[in-house]
Amino acid sequence: MKGISITLALLSFGFISSAQNEDSLMIRRIADEILINSRAYDNLRYLTKQIGARLAGSPGMVKAEQWGLKTMHESGADKTWMQECMVPHWIRGGRDEAGITSFQSTTDGVGITKSEKKLDVIALGNSVGTGPKGIVDNVVLVNSFDDLETKKDQVNGKIVFYNYKFNPAYVNTFHAYRDAAQYRSLGPSRAAKYGALAVIIRSLTHNMDNIPHTGATRYDSAYTMIPAVAIGLRDADFLSDKLANSKVSVFIRTNGKFLPDTIGHNIIGELKGTEFPDEFITVGGHLDCWDNCEGAHDDGAGCVQTMEILRAFKAIGYKPKRTIRFILFANEENGLKGGDKYADEAKTKREKHIFALESDAGGFTPRGFGFVVSEEQFKKIAPWRELIAPYGAGDFVKGGGGADIGPLNKTFGTPLAGLNTDTQRYFDIHHARNDVFESVNKRKLELGAINMAALIYLVDKYGL
Amino acid sequence: MKGISITLALLSFGFISSAQNEDSLMIRRIADEILINSRAYDNLRYLTKQIGARLAGSPGMVKAEQWGLKTMHESGADKTWMQECMVPHWIRGGRDEAGITSFQSTTDGVGITKSEKKLDVIALGNSVGTGPKGIVDNVVLVNSFDDLETKKDQVNGKIVFYNYKFNPAYVNTFHAYRDAAQYRSLGPSRAAKYGALAVIIRSLTHNMDNIPHTGATRYDSAYTMIPAVAIGLRDADFLSDKLANSKVSVFIRTNGKFLPDTIGHNIIGELKGTEFPDEFITVGGHLDCWDNCEGAHDDGAGCVQTMEILRAFKAIGYKPKRTIRFILFANEENGLKGGDKYADEAKTKREKHIFALESDAGGFTPRGFGFVVSEEQFKKIAPWRELIAPYGAGDFVKGGGGADIGPLNKTFGTPLAGLNTDTQRYFDIHHARNDVFESVNKRKLELGAINMAALIYLVDKYGL
Repeated sequence: MKGISITLALLSFGFISSAQNEDSLMIRRIADEILINSRAYDNLRYLTKQIGARLAGSPGMVKAEQWGLKTMHESGADKTWMQECMVPHWIRGGRDEAGITSFQSTTDGVGITKSEKKLDVIALGNSVGTGPKGIVDNVVLVNSFDDLETKKDQVNGKIVFYNYKFNPAYVNTFHAYRDAAQYRSLGPSRAAKYGALAVIIRSLTHNMDNIPHTGATRYDSAYTMIPAVAIGLRDADFLSDKLANSKVSVFIRTNGKFLPDTIGHNIIGELKGTEFPDEFITVGGHLDCWDNCEGAHDDGAGCVQTMEILRAFKAIGYKPKRTIRFILFANEENGLKGGDKYADEAKTKREKHIFALESDAGGFTPRGFGFVVSEEQFKKIAPWRELIAPYGAGDFVKGGGGADIGPLNKTFGTPLAGLNTDTQRYFDIHHARNDVFESVNKRKLELGAINMAALIYLVDKYGL
Repeated sequence: MKGISITLALLSFGFISSAQNEDSLMIRRIADEILINSRAYDNLRYLTKQIGARLAGSPGMVKAEQWGLKTMHESGADKTWMQECMVPHWIRGGRDEAGITSFQSTTDGVGITKSEKKLDVIALGNSVGTGPKGIVDNVVLVNSFDDLETKKDQVNGKIVFYNYKFNPAYVNTFHAYRDAAQYRSLGPSRAAKYGALAVIIRSLTHNMDNIPHTGATRYDSAYTMIPAVAIGLRDADFLSDKLANSKVSVFIRTNGKFLPDTIGHNIIGELKGTEFPDEFITVGGHLDCWDNCEGAHDDGAGCVQTMEILRAFKAIGYKPKRTIRFILFANEENGLKGGDKYADEAKTKREKHIFALESDAGGFTPRGFGFVVSEEQFKKIAPWRELIAPYGAGDFVKGGGGADIGPLNKTFGTPLAGLNTDTQRYFDIHHARNDVFESVNKRKLELGAINMAALIYLVDKYGL
């Protein structure tokens, strides 16, 4: 393209009142500040490249907390502190994880020979290890839980391979995730129920790059906890092709285990309210990430966006009416202990939490907000769409919020919102080793912070 | 993120009539067909990796035309043909392009020494060469055309360096482009007016990767045509830093020239209308791209999307009421001769062109359409937003269209639309050597085709 063919999206909006005009100008100021002077991208570079992986309980998390506290302070908080909480401490453990598939292959005119192929495996988070000798057995492919039921008599003493596919027909990839994620969370125990020794799942992604994606599994205490790994899409297709023609066995070795719970922290920064200091607005992301990646999109992005909003508010001299808390939550991926702790302490202190916002859908182009609010609140929020849409997040829908702020809603009925982003690439990198700094675009990251800041500003000004 | 927090965007829409319901189902069928069976991504891989660069008049373009004709046929056109047109034939020419900057650097306690640094340069499209010996002279930095006016007495016999920056404050990067592109198109002649020997421009991008971006320049015949190159952002910052402290000279060698006009072709596929075969709907992208890249986003994406719409219509058995033309235009980047030819021939044949759509904003996530239509037509189109928004392109704005279909509007007043996409990354790769296949996401590319197909379907069904 050489020409110019885009006109202001604003044209599609109607009349703007004078209060809206004032708000529009303030949001423009916030946007300029962030687009011109943002620290978000450089902060993300540090978090991902200098610290990297940071699962709850890990040494990386200790470093990340120190960095978070320092960066929160530098971003201009009136007050910063660490809020202690007990967190689970799962480790991937000892030796390298391994997966090797053996299968019969027919060589023309010679007969049957046996071949091997290494699989790129990763143990699911929270899963138990195989022991140092690993597990080797024949594989039973199932395409779904229904398929498992029909094959339940075949899986005893075997390895179950869930080859359930991420459905390409969903436009929003989170719908494909919702559809397929049960195989990761429930699959191991469902297979253990019928005597399976271990489970392999097809990764929850559209990405054909063969990188395996981890994420938490959840054992049903009624059944034996069995090892579980994910494999990438090319390996999954390879395995299912081989299984169509021959007997296939797989060797798996994983080393995962839980150590005793340990201490983690929410990192909190605060801007004191000038009119209603006892009313709290919370905005945050989660600091922890899986141990196999840099956690750039999930959720380094949400963390640096959170601190960028703080920095921008201070830089333009914005003094909130209400007290705003900026939080890096301790433990979203495998426990939610940070979010629970924050709500618990708020309850103990009888704090009034009027709104909470989370960014945990990656540093992609913002598209909207998902609200957990009453009908009346949704009506109050709806006209703000005109102010926010020019920055991208104009799709206001009901339903959403965020895992870490969920306990606030449970405890107080606090209205919630979650930043919704362009979902197309999220599951290309989700819980996988390619969730790295290089996969984040500076301006998209900044636009997320702008839209969040605009919403926080409006809630602070008008209440909810 | 581990949870699920996105609800159907459809929730925000109102009542859907039964005709709309039928349309909604048809668009869903189109979407499923494309998301599940698309050939667009594989076609783009072939075009970019097996053919690559394809400026009008180049051997690459000849290959691309042959591929386009074959692929158009395979995609299911009732009829395919090549429409001949004369195209400009600019070549980058002979030896490697070169840029070397020499500057004074002070070594502590030793005095002044002279240093050199190689610049990563690319000649602007359509620009004249320096001759084999190159040009070497001192550099005058100007930050804008206003700045040039104040320095007009200093530039005679010098090299002018336009360091005008892509403005980060524009949310839509096309606005930054509109703001800065005049330095590429008009800069050389403006400088030549005051006797400059050559021009260097800061590339039109936010991307800090230092890759230089080409694109067409436009000489004013009143002044000498002088050589012009672009440099990447790091080199531009380096040069401006050096110029702040010392005299800087630059050696430039470029070899660009025009050969005599040659023959090119629009590649056309047609689905004959069943009810109104004499009413034409046109959809297309441009097949040509700059010689320094694979033209994956600009505009390989538009070409494969165009053919994907055709393939999907045939695959689901859709028989259009009106005749639909699928076109790969011959020459958008430096001449527009393909678009002109198409409109000219349509005029000669007295064809009735009721609508034309172009995709030339890259294979990024679709966001909306920019329409060049009457107020009445815009009112007719507006309700279609509800049908299209679930697939991404729900932002309907006035103004847009596309360069290649522009002549149809000029000739017949044909209503136009252009696919608008997420603009954040477009100028990271625009006219630069990183506009390659790997920068395109399969699903985003497909979603573009889906939204275009939906719009074509609605125009075909309801007219305009």
